[in-house]
Formats: sequence, structure tokens, C-alpha cells
Amino acid sequence: MKNLNEQAAYNLTAVREKKPLIHNITNFVVMNYTANALLAMGASPVMAHAQNEVEDMVSFAGTLVLNIGTLTDDWIAAMIKAGQKATAQQTPIILDPVGSGATALRTNSAKKIIDAAKISVIRGNASEILSLRHENSKTKGVDSIHSVEEAADAATVLAEELSTTLAITGAVDLVTDGSRVVRVANGHPLMGYVTGTGCTATVVIGAFLAVDDDPLSATATALAYFGLAGEVAGRHADAPGNFMIQMIDALYMITPQDLQNGSKIEAAG
Amino acid sequence: MKNLNEQAAYNLTAVREKKPLIHNITNFVVMNYTANALLAMGASPVMAHAQNEVEDMVSFAGTLVLNIGTLTDDWIAAMIKAGQKATAQQTPIILDPVGSGATALRTNSAKKIIDAAKISVIRGNASEILSLRHENSKTKGVDSIHSVEEAADAATVLAEELSTTLAITGAVDLVTDGSRVVRVANGHPLMGYVTGTGCTATVVIGAFLAVDDDPLSATATALAYFGLAGEVAGRHADAPGNFMIQMIDALYMITPQDLQNGSKIEAAG
Amino acid sequence: MKNLNEQAAYNLTAVREKKPLIHNITNFVVMNYTANALLAMGASPVMAHAQNEVEDMVSFAGTLVLNIGTLTDDWIAAMIKAGQKATAQQTPIILDPVGSGATALRTNSAKKIIDAAKISVIRGNASEILSLRHENSKTKGVDSIHSVEEAADAATVLAEELSTTLAITGAVDLVTDGSRVVRVANGHPLMGYVTGTGCTATVVIGAFLAVDDDPLSATATALAYFGLAGEVAGRHADAPGNFMIQMIDALYMITPQDLQNGSKIEAAG
Repeated sequence: MKNLNEQAAYNLTAVREKKPLIHNITNFVVMNYTANALLAMGASPVMAHAQNEVEDMVSFAGTLVLNIGTLTDDWIAAMIKAGQKATAQQTPIILDPVGSGATALRTNSAKKIIDAAKISVIRGNASEILSLRHENSKTKGVDSIHSVEEAADAATVLAEELSTTLAITGAVDLVTDGSRVVRVANGHPLMGYVTGTGCTATVVIGAFLAVDDDPLSATATALAYFGLAGEVAGRHADAPGNFMIQMIDALYMITPQDLQNGSKIEAAG
Repeated sequence: MKNLNEQAAYNLTAVREKKPLIHNITNFVVMNYTANALLAMGASPVMAHAQNEVEDMVSFAGTLVLNIGTLTDDWIAAMIKAGQKATAQQTPIILDPVGSGATALRTNSAKKIIDAAKISVIRGNASEILSLRHENSKTKGVDSIHSVEEAADAATVLAEELSTTLAITGAVDLVTDGSRVVRVANGHPLMGYVTGTGCTATVVIGAFLAVDDDPLSATATALAYFGLAGEVAGRHADAPGNFMIQMIDALYMITPQDLQNGSKIEAAG
Repeated sequence: MKNLNEQAAYNLTAVREKKPLIHNITNFVVMNYTANALLAMGASPVMAHAQNEVEDMVSFAGTLVLNIGTLTDDWIAAMIKAGQKATAQQTPIILDPVGSGATALRTNSAKKIIDAAKISVIRGNASEILSLRHENSKTKGVDSIHSVEEAADAATVLAEELSTTLAITGAVDLVTDGSRVVRVANGHPLMGYVTGTGCTATVVIGAFLAVDDDPLSATATALAYFGLAGEVAGRHADAPGNFMIQMIDALYMITPQDLQNGSKIEAAG
């Protein structure tokens, strides 16, 4: 595998040069924060969800971000329309299946989107990701999984079954495309006290997907960058209010060289 | 009445230990800020408003928060569905009737929710709360009320008529369940310059309701905690931007002992 | 023309004294930030978009703000209803045609609103503003415009054709009502890294429109105030996270005298 620390620096440089438009159909809670994160890192966010507009809008996009955090049927229909258009024009799509596994609407909606469009990357926590398995999957459900290793094994099988790249984020992030497995150890405990840090990781991956053709390396390097922003923020703030502001500042301030030096990406498997 | 300063410390400890899930059906303006407030204090927020999901989601919740700040008929229908389910399973509900009294849609919607579900607590300003009286109420309307004492008397009668706990927040907060009346003097003037501080008070009460069976004590102690966070923030910030960030930090930093020492709760009546 | 630096101070004083209610039908991304900006400057924001409520709500308003950033047909219908009511009662309306020119839905919706209601001010970037021309306009389209001077000429003609005041914001803002042209040079480069700074400029103009009968002077003075807030923020912050918080603080802290001294408004044409 190529040197992912160098690739991280390359991707950050490329985002800042190309300023890719990232089209988000996302949840109400995080729209402002994720837009600010995208701007701070050098990308161009747009939020648009009308069914009679999403195909037009996604035609300009470098990446489409789909996030089901405050879903309704109308919004899912818009996501599918945008997803099909993005698929047709080979624009990368990242899905954040917020709460999949918790309610039937969320699990079913996430699966419908996956069936309707070519998804490059799906990012979630372990239970969200593992809820996406089909009935005849060879993987176990999340309730039968009792260790990080079992989750990694299940994710690897599932990534192959779904022909996508999966990112399970947590204290250490796991990224797999079914054949390769990478772990990213950057991050800070206060990230768990800010709403939408997972959703923000998703849009940061989205920006890297617009400049890196390999979803696995785009995802791992984006997670290193985002986790490093958490580490930098943690040096300046000791509570979540200031921490979330410092995260935005860090996304703006971190240089490609900082990222190359600070990335904690470990190829495995 | 039990010692409410000690109860405040107990409730804050309990929220941090149990991390109750707080299901919010709320307005677009405050979703991000109230989610961050809940996380900072130690609770777990979820926002979900689809009519074909809210019953599933509320089944996991410690408290249901209903807030009509940017209401439409669809959202009110979802609130009623969630409220009826919460009532059936005895999950506490808190209602924030934002703008009730200002437009017919708001007043009627708030009353519909109150009729459809068992509401544990309603929090608002004086005109919002007093707009909720039925035609044959023994209380006067807000336009006929000319002093804090008259408002307190009206609220006490109304709480009994509605079989709920009412919180009228302001420079000094009033909490009554119809038989008991408590006042809370914590707070800071800059709270009035941050959007959604009232809505945020509501979710903080919501988190305390998940761990305290007595709505009056849950409400009074939550308002003391939230007001104390304002006081702490006011020591670090002299303008609303930094103040709203410091509020989040204070919700995270305040210890149960700080709260017990700093609560300004006064039982009366 | 009157002294616009003095008028700026007068308008800020008047907003803080009268605390006008600003009714916003706006996009999900910026609702929280624009509400906080309005509060910080001394105005009273309300967000309400239900078609069965907007006429009631706008009847209390000093200004109606319409922003199509995350538009759908339902929201546009609400904007038109509110706009017609505002027109009937002579309440000033400001339109922010976010993304007009980028998709057909946005361009058509912006034009529908302009046709349906009397718009006092339209604020956008050059391509948004120039997309609003009718087929038989004497102006050139944005793709045929190659200099700031050509944009200014086109805007002046368009303002007259639309019988409104146009504000094209950028490094230097241009304001014209078709006969007069004013430029405002206040601002800071980090404003481009915060989501919704354009939308926030719009609501600040909205607040000044509630106290100043002349849309051109309301707009120019509001843009000087908002740009000055950026300059003040830039003295305290060097990255977008802290900068956006310092912007809110500056809107609160700037005195009328500061504004009179710091305004960079230049009448021309």
C-alpha cells in the first residue's frame, strides 16, 4: 500500500487547491457545524434537499454526502434521487447511516439508499455499520459481537458483500474495503461530547473523496486529519464548548506537513 | 419539602451516571445548541421527528421533549404521536410552547398536545404559559396581569387545572405544581442575548426529569443548574458569542458539589 | 446624499432602542447563527415558516427576511404568502436569493418571490444578483461580465428594472437603487470561511430596514456595521471558529460612535 501519511498531506493540499463542492443532504442538527468544518478545511459546502433540485445540484458536486440523522420519507426520496444521479455521473457518495439499527425506518432507509446507488464509503459506529448486513450475510449481528477483533472481521466481510469501503469510527477507527484493513488512532475524548462529530468526520471524508480516487486511502487519511484536529483542539480547550470551536480552527490551521507528521494510520491485515 | 439544593446535586450525579436518552422533537433554530447542552451535561440527545419513527424512538427515551418553535402541522402530528406513546409507557414529557399566545397556530397546537398526552412539565415565559388556559379557566389572561405576584397566583391555579408542573422562567424563575411554589434566582443577563436559552433550559429540565420522579423538584433543580451555568459563563465572557460557548463549558464543568453550593432555590407558598 | 456614517450610528442606536421583531423564513444552515446575530445587535428574531402561520407572524414584524438557501416548494409558498402580507401592510422585505443562477429551482423561485411581493432590498453575490434579470433586461448575464465596473453598471440597470435596492457583497460591497450607487469597504477575509456570513449580512440589513425608511442607506450602513464587526473579530481571532464567535461579540460590543468612526461608506455615481 502507498504511504498513507504522505497521501494525507497530498489530499489536504489538493482540497485546499481545488476547493471541491460538497453537496450535503444531511440532518438539521449538524448542518451548520459541518458546513463550517468544510469551509475551514478549504472545501465548498452546499446543502440542498428539494427533490426537484437535487439532480441539478449534484451535477456540480465533487462528492455527495448522504446523512439520515433527521430523516423523513421525503428526504430519503431526495437522497435516492441525488444518489442515482451521482452514480450515473460517477461522483463519489458517502453515506452516514445515523441511528441505523435503532429504528426500522433508519435501518430500512439506509439499506434502500445502498441498494439504489453506488456508495463509495459508509461511516458509522459499530452498531450502525453492522446493522446494514442483509439477511443472508455471512457476518454476525452486532449483538453477537464481543470484541474489537470480531467487529473488524465482520466489517471486512460486510465491506466485500456491499462492495464498498466501511469506516467504523471510535477510539481507534477501522477502515476496510474488504481486502485491505487500516486503523487510525488519531482523536481526543472530548470529540464524544460534541454533537455531530461523527457526521463531521463524514463530510471531511467526503472532501477527501473528491480528490483521491481510492476510497480506502481517502477515508483513512481524512480520519487522521479529523482526529488530529481533535488532538490540536484538546491542547487549547478542556471542555466541549471551546473544544468544538477549536476543532474548526484546527481544521483551518493544520498544514499538510503537520498532517504528515501527526497521522497515526496503521495498515494491517 | 426535601432539601432541593441536595436534590440538585443528586440529580446532576444521576444524569452523568445514567446518561439518559432524551428524545427531542424541537425547532430548527436550537437543535444544535440543545444537543450540545445535553451532551455537555452528561445526557444523550436524539432528534427524530418522522411520524413513522417517533413511536419507535421514544420507546428508548428517558424523557420526551416537545418544542413548537418552528412548528408545522406535520411536526405537531409527530409530537402528538410521540406524546401518546410516551404517555402510555409513562415516560415523562416536557413541553416548550414557544410563541404560544402570539399566533393562533401556536396556541392551538400547544393546547392540542396538552390534551393528547400527559405532560409532566411546561416551561415558557409568562405570556406563553398563561396563554394555555382554557376558556373556563379561573385564571386571568396575561394582559390582565400586572405584577409578578399576580402571575404566580395565575400559574398556581393553572398548574392545578392542567394537572402539570409549570415553569415560568425569567430573571427569577417560578415553578409550581398547583400546591407547591418554588423560586429559582440563578441566572445571568447575557442569557437573554443567546437564541434558545429558554429551549435549552427545557432540555436540561428534560434530562433531570429522567432521573427524578418529582417534576417540581426536577424542574427547580435543573433551572438552578442551568442558571448557575449562566453565572459561571458570565465570569468568563462579557458578550453573547463567547458567553454561549462558556455556557456549554460550564454545563460540563459544574460539579454536583458546585451545584449544591451555588443553587438559589427558595421554597415558598 | 445625507452623511451615511452618521446615519449608520443613528440606525444602530434605533435598533437597540426599538428592538424590532425580524421575521425570518430562511435556511436550516444559518438559522441559529442569524438569530444570534440579530440578538447580539439588539433586534428580536423570530423564525416561522408554516403556511398557516406566516401571515399572523409577519403582522408583528418590523421586517420580513426571505432566504432561499434550503428551499422547497412548500417553503417558497410560505415566503410568497408572508411576502404578500408584508407588502399589503408596507412592511419592508429583504430577499437573499442564495444560489440563484446555480439551479433552475433557485432562479425561478427567487423570480417568483420578486414578482409576488414588493421587495425593498435583494442581497447576494454578483452571480446571484445578476441571475435575477428578466429575459428582456437591458443588462448582460453574469458570464458576459468581466470587471467590477461592468457588474456595477449591470446592477444599477437591474435595480431600476426591478424597482428595488440591490446589494452585491464581496471584498467591497456595492449598493444601488438604480439612481444612487454606494460602496462599502468594511470587512475581513475570514468572513468567507464562516458559513452564512452572507445570510447574516442580510438579516443585519433587515434590522436596519426596520428603523430606516431609505433602503439604500439602511443597506449601506448595515453592511458597514457588519463589515466592521468582521474587522473587530479579526483583531481577536486568526481562524474561522473563534472568528465566528468574535463576530457575534463584535455585533454586541460595537457602539454607535465606533460605527460612525469606522464606517467605510463611499457614495459614487
